[in-house]
Amino acid sequence: MKKDVRSVISILDLTREEIESLMDTADEIERDPEAFSEVCRHKQLATLFFEPSTRTRLSFESAMLSLGGSVLGFSSANSSSASKGESVADTFEVVSNYADIIATRHPKEGAAYVGALHSSVPVVNAGDGGHFHPTQTLADLLTIRRKKGRLNDLCIGICGDLKYGRTVHSLIEAMQRYSGISYVLISPEELRLPGYMTDKLKAEGAEYVETADLEASMPKLDVLYMTRIQKERFTDEAEYQRLKDSYILTPDKLSSAKKDLCIMHPLPRVNEISVKVDEDERACYFYETYCGKQMRMALIMFLLGLTKDGAREVPKAPAKMEPKKVLRDVISCKNPACISSTEQELPQVFELADEEKHEYRCIYCDSLVRYQ
Amino acid sequence: MKKDVRSVISILDLTREEIESLMDTADEIERDPEAFSEVCRHKQLATLFFEPSTRTRLSFESAMLSLGGSVLGFSSANSSSASKGESVADTFEVVSNYADIIATRHPKEGAAYVGALHSSVPVVNAGDGGHFHPTQTLADLLTIRRKKGRLNDLCIGICGDLKYGRTVHSLIEAMQRYSGISYVLISPEELRLPGYMTDKLKAEGAEYVETADLEASMPKLDVLYMTRIQKERFTDEAEYQRLKDSYILTPDKLSSAKKDLCIMHPLPRVNEISVKVDEDERACYFYETYCGKQMRMALIMFLLGLTKDGAREVPKAPAKMEPKKVLRDVISCKNPACISSTEQELPQVFELADEEKHEYRCIYCDSLVRYQ
Amino acid sequence: MKKDVRSVISILDLTREEIESLMDTADEIERDPEAFSEVCRHKQLATLFFEPSTRTRLSFESAMLSLGGSVLGFSSANSSSASKGESVADTFEVVSNYADIIATRHPKEGAAYVGALHSSVPVVNAGDGGHFHPTQTLADLLTIRRKKGRLNDLCIGICGDLKYGRTVHSLIEAMQRYSGISYVLISPEELRLPGYMTDKLKAEGAEYVETADLEASMPKLDVLYMTRIQKERFTDEAEYQRLKDSYILTPDKLSSAKKDLCIMHPLPRVNEISVKVDEDERACYFYETYCGKQMRMALIMFLLGLTKDGAREVPKAPAKMEPKKVLRDVISCKNPACISSTEQELPQVFELADEEKHEYRCIYCDSLVRYQ
Repeated sequence: MKKDVRSVISILDLTREEIESLMDTADEIERDPEAFSEVCRHKQLATLFFEPSTRTRLSFESAMLSLGGSVLGFSSANSSSASKGESVADTFEVVSNYADIIATRHPKEGAAYVGALHSSVPVVNAGDGGHFHPTQTLADLLTIRRKKGRLNDLCIGICGDLKYGRTVHSLIEAMQRYSGISYVLISPEELRLPGYMTDKLKAEGAEYVETADLEASMPKLDVLYMTRIQKERFTDEAEYQRLKDSYILTPDKLSSAKKDLCIMHPLPRVNEISVKVDEDERACYFYETYCGKQMRMALIMFLLGLTKDGAREVPKAPAKMEPKKVLRDVISCKNPACISSTEQELPQVFELADEEKHEYRCIYCDSLVRYQ
Repeated sequence: MKKDVRSVISILDLTREEIESLMDTADEIERDPEAFSEVCRHKQLATLFFEPSTRTRLSFESAMLSLGGSVLGFSSANSSSASKGESVADTFEVVSNYADIIATRHPKEGAAYVGALHSSVPVVNAGDGGHFHPTQTLADLLTIRRKKGRLNDLCIGICGDLKYGRTVHSLIEAMQRYSGISYVLISPEELRLPGYMTDKLKAEGAEYVETADLEASMPKLDVLYMTRIQKERFTDEAEYQRLKDSYILTPDKLSSAKKDLCIMHPLPRVNEISVKVDEDERACYFYETYCGKQMRMALIMFLLGLTKDGAREVPKAPAKMEPKKVLRDVISCKNPACISSTEQELPQVFELADEEKHEYRCIYCDSLVRYQ
Repeated sequence: MKKDVRSVISILDLTREEIESLMDTADEIERDPEAFSEVCRHKQLATLFFEPSTRTRLSFESAMLSLGGSVLGFSSANSSSASKGESVADTFEVVSNYADIIATRHPKEGAAYVGALHSSVPVVNAGDGGHFHPTQTLADLLTIRRKKGRLNDLCIGICGDLKYGRTVHSLIEAMQRYSGISYVLISPEELRLPGYMTDKLKAEGAEYVETADLEASMPKLDVLYMTRIQKERFTDEAEYQRLKDSYILTPDKLSSAKKDLCIMHPLPRVNEISVKVDEDERACYFYETYCGKQMRMALIMFLLGLTKDGAREVPKAPAKMEPKKVLRDVISCKNPACISSTEQELPQVFELADEEKHEYRCIYCDSLVRYQ
């Protein structure tokens, strides 16, 4: 975020108005893709994927190519200098000398943020560990808006791994900007939404219920957001085996659902939605990837300050808010998934989160630490 | 093969007339490549390579780039969501939302066919296990037509691994559409052409001999098609070591060959053709890769309905023939190399192959199973 | 180097005049990048990276894309047919049928040279083991010329691994073409510049000192070239651990340095330059990558015979000098890092290097062998 460059690390880095404008652009792209086919001519997107993610990477690449731009990058850490011990910071310092915009995925939380701190071009977070994945949320929002015709007054069921599912957390944060939203949070006990998320929902007066029963919840839902129970989130293999099949969506479970239910999934799925559901008209998960590409096209244009009618102002990073109390190299982050656990010479920076509770938040991974 | 999209899984998915038209286009490309340099502008090829194959992938990519299109994809399963357990079907559902045409390689037989069933854009099989590799055959045919001036009245020697060599089987199937073709099948006993292939040759009245002696066969050949004895096809390492050097082509073995012999090889070679043969004017194996790129250019144009003078009709998938008797989820395929052994929730489908023998053919890998 | 195609394997394959012309082009590119954005339209660069190197590969790719060309290739041997045993020679035979120019990296010394021998298009060596890396040297030279305003009358400190650092050797060879250059060679005893290099400096009358003390050397330097002490160069892990921190550049060590010192590093760094130095205005190592891209653009244009005003003559390979005495398949190279140790059927070729000493030089890796 050198030179006030605008990057998107979390969905909250975009205002509700900006997101709606991106959706309008996506709709324009759908109506007339040819009109956008040269918008990014001579522009380069770097896809820096420190861990593989086919769909996300290909979606970004296809988005850039459909705008007439070009693409370079790597698709796993093996193919990168990271295997020689290069830091994330240095990689971004270098690549921002080559490309006009960067999309990045990394297994560590906060990695995209560290990258953005060292980039002279916009950075889009394409997933940083279990932390954020804002362009998935953009795809989700467009899918809902197109399928339901609105983003308010919806009953949204979210099913599966609500504890570690970063797409779930981002979707809720994005939907909280709309009115009339209620949530049905469907998960096994062990994978319930984290306390800080339910605390936040309570504080914001949101309507939600927590349940373990997918079928009983079905009739009232307008949207059903299924998620994968990821093996890599479990330390206990047996526990994973016991739970993984608990929340499988099958045609018979859908018999009590609304006729216009919108069934979503961030993909890839393993078996949490039966292939037999694919033929159901309410299945929207492949359609989400179609929406996702168009939102990524819109986002790239936005960050580069380009429209189908030529250049416009490049968006600036928002003015920093009144600086909160900051601890610099006083305490260190204990989250083993935080980028600060591996990145060399990275300063340990915490911002005051809750004065009363003496809680500080790691600026990289958002973990809370008590300190007084 | 949604919406009757035309895909090419086997060489027999193209008629003889279509192949000849592709060769004519390839000849035009050779004469005036510049005339084709913008034919695929704004079109995207996805190369979905679930196992590595440099030459084939680069040939497809270079073909698309030489047509003014662009390319995205992955070059091994490690770099793809397949490592998270995503099915082939889902990958194609998603990627056909991004790209205009897909070329795919996969270690399992029938994988490209499964992909095509779930793709809304044309799929080209770039190799599915030991099963099919139609664009290699297109390269072979163009090489023979250019070097010999004809595709009929030829004595074709095929040497090496005739049992597992998919390129061998496809070449024979393609050549059987021409008249005056005779075959000299040169291999160790253990790697002879499979019985169903020789049965077919017999049934079609083809002239062929089987021999283990490369040198004795040499004088009568117009074409010598060498193949690699692949280590990965052997379960017994010692057996591989004993056989691998048996059929090495060296300059002295060529002393009795015709002056205009066309020496071919699908590449990569290990040591089955001595490097010393490369300087021989009859060595055509690198020339094949040159032909292969042009045939892939022609095929991409054909499937996208594009010509150097603009769009023409996109080819439709041929009307399904009178449906044969089908078994659906009655028996299952026993071939461990079949995609049905790994793809989740894939229906087990067999078509009646031989009523008298009660034989059914797996629609994915073409294995025969008896059932009554 | 078929058909007298011009390739760049070592920095000495370019004359001083050619390098200066490349730097002039790079300066033009910096002034007006748009003027070059279509120079390589319809041209393809293949990046054949048999081992990963993110920055170098992305720099080449970005250079080609910024010239309006396109890119294909692979980023590690895993993704290539090399894993099936294909030779380097065959890979280049094939790929030069697809692309217009090739950039290659390989772990073996001499691999790029073998590739060039089998390529019908220009080959640029992007690193062959510990041997050569000419485009890094081009980046270094442009950085020095831009930062210091000259390439003569400079005191150049080179610090770290001078024994195995290929970029060090190339930089010295390139600087030896200029007058008034003195060197301060700073390294632990074990990693001093090889004897043949110091012999050469002596023979050419160059001024140099060898020292183990970075701080004491600082005040007189105009340029400080830091290098990484690479783990992979050590057979003894303990020795590596003892040495690796010995030559770490920190802000306090810079206190005695000139105000206009140019601090360079070929990257990636591990910890040999503290991150705290990055903010120092004298830190030029990220700027080097910016220069490197422009030099690669200039080099690609040069080798393809293209200018911003259209095509010019494609450069020819220089006429072979009076053939020295050559030994062909008489002795074999003992260097385990030489490409001749792995490439199949590669002739063992040595040229007479020193008649008196009876020394012959391997044409691939430049190792010297005595033979009489």
